[in-house]
Amino acid sequence: MTSPSTERRSTAAKGGGGSAVSRRALITSLAVAAGAGAGAVLAFRGDDAPASPAPATSADPPLPEPSHGTYQAGIATPQQRYACFAAFDLDVGAPAGKAPSTAQTAVGFQELMERWSGAAERLMRGRPAGPLPVNRPGAPADSGIADGLQASGLTVTFGLGPELFDRIGRKDLRPRHLRELPAFSTDRLEPAWSGGQLFVQICGDDPQIVSHAFRSLRGRAPGLARLRWSQQGFLGRFGDATPRNLFGHKDGTANPRPGTAAFDDAVRVTAADEPSWFTGGTYLVFRKIRMDLPKWDTSTAQQQDQTIGRRRDTGAPLSGGHEFTPLDLTRTGPDGEPLIPADSHLALVRDIPMLRRSYNYDYAFQAAPSAEHRHDGDDRPGHSHDDPLHDHAGTGHDTYDTGMLFCAYLRDPADFIRAQRKMAAADRLNAFIQHTGSAVFAIPPAAEPGRHLAAALFPAH
Amino acid sequence: MTSPSTERRSTAAKGGGGSAVSRRALITSLAVAAGAGAGAVLAFRGDDAPASPAPATSADPPLPEPSHGTYQAGIATPQQRYACFAAFDLDVGAPAGKAPSTAQTAVGFQELMERWSGAAERLMRGRPAGPLPVNRPGAPADSGIADGLQASGLTVTFGLGPELFDRIGRKDLRPRHLRELPAFSTDRLEPAWSGGQLFVQICGDDPQIVSHAFRSLRGRAPGLARLRWSQQGFLGRFGDATPRNLFGHKDGTANPRPGTAAFDDAVRVTAADEPSWFTGGTYLVFRKIRMDLPKWDTSTAQQQDQTIGRRRDTGAPLSGGHEFTPLDLTRTGPDGEPLIPADSHLALVRDIPMLRRSYNYDYAFQAAPSAEHRHDGDDRPGHSHDDPLHDHAGTGHDTYDTGMLFCAYLRDPADFIRAQRKMAAADRLNAFIQHTGSAVFAIPPAAEPGRHLAAALFPAH
Repeated sequence: MTSPSTERRSTAAKGGGGSAVSRRALITSLAVAAGAGAGAVLAFRGDDAPASPAPATSADPPLPEPSHGTYQAGIATPQQRYACFAAFDLDVGAPAGKAPSTAQTAVGFQELMERWSGAAERLMRGRPAGPLPVNRPGAPADSGIADGLQASGLTVTFGLGPELFDRIGRKDLRPRHLRELPAFSTDRLEPAWSGGQLFVQICGDDPQIVSHAFRSLRGRAPGLARLRWSQQGFLGRFGDATPRNLFGHKDGTANPRPGTAAFDDAVRVTAADEPSWFTGGTYLVFRKIRMDLPKWDTSTAQQQDQTIGRRRDTGAPLSGGHEFTPLDLTRTGPDGEPLIPADSHLALVRDIPMLRRSYNYDYAFQAAPSAEHRHDGDDRPGHSHDDPLHDHAGTGHDTYDTGMLFCAYLRDPADFIRAQRKMAAADRLNAFIQHTGSAVFAIPPAAEPGRHLAAALFPAH
Repeated sequence: MTSPSTERRSTAAKGGGGSAVSRRALITSLAVAAGAGAGAVLAFRGDDAPASPAPATSADPPLPEPSHGTYQAGIATPQQRYACFAAFDLDVGAPAGKAPSTAQTAVGFQELMERWSGAAERLMRGRPAGPLPVNRPGAPADSGIADGLQASGLTVTFGLGPELFDRIGRKDLRPRHLRELPAFSTDRLEPAWSGGQLFVQICGDDPQIVSHAFRSLRGRAPGLARLRWSQQGFLGRFGDATPRNLFGHKDGTANPRPGTAAFDDAVRVTAADEPSWFTGGTYLVFRKIRMDLPKWDTSTAQQQDQTIGRRRDTGAPLSGGHEFTPLDLTRTGPDGEPLIPADSHLALVRDIPMLRRSYNYDYAFQAAPSAEHRHDGDDRPGHSHDDPLHDHAGTGHDTYDTGMLFCAYLRDPADFIRAQRKMAAADRLNAFIQHTGSAVFAIPPAAEPGRHLAAALFPAH
């Protein structure tokens, strides 16, 4: 990381807050009130302090992963090897005993977007995140954990949840297809890992860079938002080959290629369909999918391949050919049955236009601090707790938490819903997976130069 | 991963089990009994099946990270970027209603070491782990998740906990300094993350390779041992520079360099001090150390540096110079106080000979699935749950779990105990850290060719 360059005042800081009061004055009063109420020493910068996001200066290093067209970075970007996903809820401070007004909440939202947009841009350029908005005399402006590291392909991508638009008084501008996903019959959702008003996807090729970025963004949230959940994933270094998920299968074979019309058709929302501020954006469907690996590992190779509809080794559809050969659902085997079972995953989801940008996760053994997991060293005859065939009772496969952080970027979540309904009804994969987390977000188009993300929700007047 | 080469029978399979009965026959009867008791379909290979570890054939790829002298791989090896640490307890199956005898447990231990030693060697060569010892007709021998990946510097390192030697009837051969660590006044240990009879350290430069190795080893344990805990860490790609921990400080500056006499003096146990089978081994002290990052990030740069005793930016001791300049505890500042405070971390631990091979961990927000973390979307005036100054109540810093997986390889854990007592009594760092996990293991010397790890505990007779 290089040292931070001079910050300059952003034109975005002058944007209207949709409120009759001075935005800066309001932010300051909110902050003082919140600080007093909580006994904290938080204080926001005053009007004389530099605002973010800072426009790039000519001396800045380039963005290693620039946004692609109207997309934010981290969508059309080739997948990096590590990812942190986090959801936040607005939690704007207000005078003790009073709920913040919608106008106050809207101002807090803009302040957060300004902080986050500026920090994200600096981080993606391999610079420190910049000064924190809290009053910490003498405290370092950056955690320093990335000093000496490269930006490592870092991208930061922001999203907005369905609840948010009501909270900030912009219900009329909510993207048309943004609503909570319906319940599916196979869902085993954990509320603590689901939903959220604000979303951050942080991807990079160095986990310490990802950790640094998460910490930098989280440290800018207090007084405005609080963390709701986070998840962390990885991909093996497969080079140009399609990455493999933890079932050992290639995952993402059918993805559209960035830069093609098929990509935009699948991913980008259009002006005809959505509020104009959202044109060029997309949606993200996020699902935490736990995989029952012991059960999978003890099923037969044939069961596994017929569950997916592809050969594990080559990724070819069971109807023949290579990984990218179109599937043939009519082709049958010697027994007269279709080579690709009608209830295989491939047969059910084949026609869904979306960009899958998923990550594997392996939290391994998340020990619950309970007596069950304490071992006293005594002989335990016949104990089969760790038996791969029997440690997946209940909804949680006990505490062995491993699987996929499924990310689908698409222009209409209804396409995912249609696919997921078909899967819930029939997919052979249901015997091996559980959806334990769920969220959906509108992913705004990339910020305009000098403005924060989603600034178009608050046109100057 | 390349396809597995032909397995050959190991000479180690002929080693005596210290039991009057045929070892193979005993294993088989234990397995059948365990399977029947649990309703499982486990069955171990019979005498006609190939045994592991397989000696390398000339066609095998070389070990990318060979063991160094008598050390197992993963000790003198330059640190890789990812690590998974796991502890297991023996859990040898026996006829229902009966506890296994010590002899039966010893046989089970040897069987496990044989499986693990063979699998680890194959994995380190970039090959699949080899056939599983369970009866799974038609099931694939490997999960396939590493197909197409390089070995990526994988090392697998095994250790033995204090309890183990009693369990297997080898109390007389227990390493002399192997006993549970004493309690320290600052400990906040979680039993679910502490202790263990068997230990595995898996390190590599690709997290999917690490995940693959863990899964391969875990899948070989049922019927013999069960997982007790696991932890996962990372290091940024710092190249030749000393890596930084999550306090932003360089960590490992004082490490001895592999290949030097100082390294062996610090790390390797000697024949004069230990049972002969353990000569050339070492000890590992493992501590899960949670860091209070919000508190750290809101303290001043001076407080931070004086807590550590070094400058964060250069790593130089506060008495001056560069990272590797010897510290000078007598040097004082203008106020007459020592530049390196006597209660700084550096001043307290400066003389402890050990190899620190620690990893950072950032589990971020491990949401407890409780009502507290559900958010109903209502306005919440003055809510400060996520305030960086106030989310570290109690012993757990709530659910924000981040810090260091401290690993010290050393020839006598007493050196660590001495250092930790000094730290517990005085270290400024105590305001920012909690030790929440603890374990100690004897790390046997590398396996002899064709024999499993720690085979010397059971000399042929």
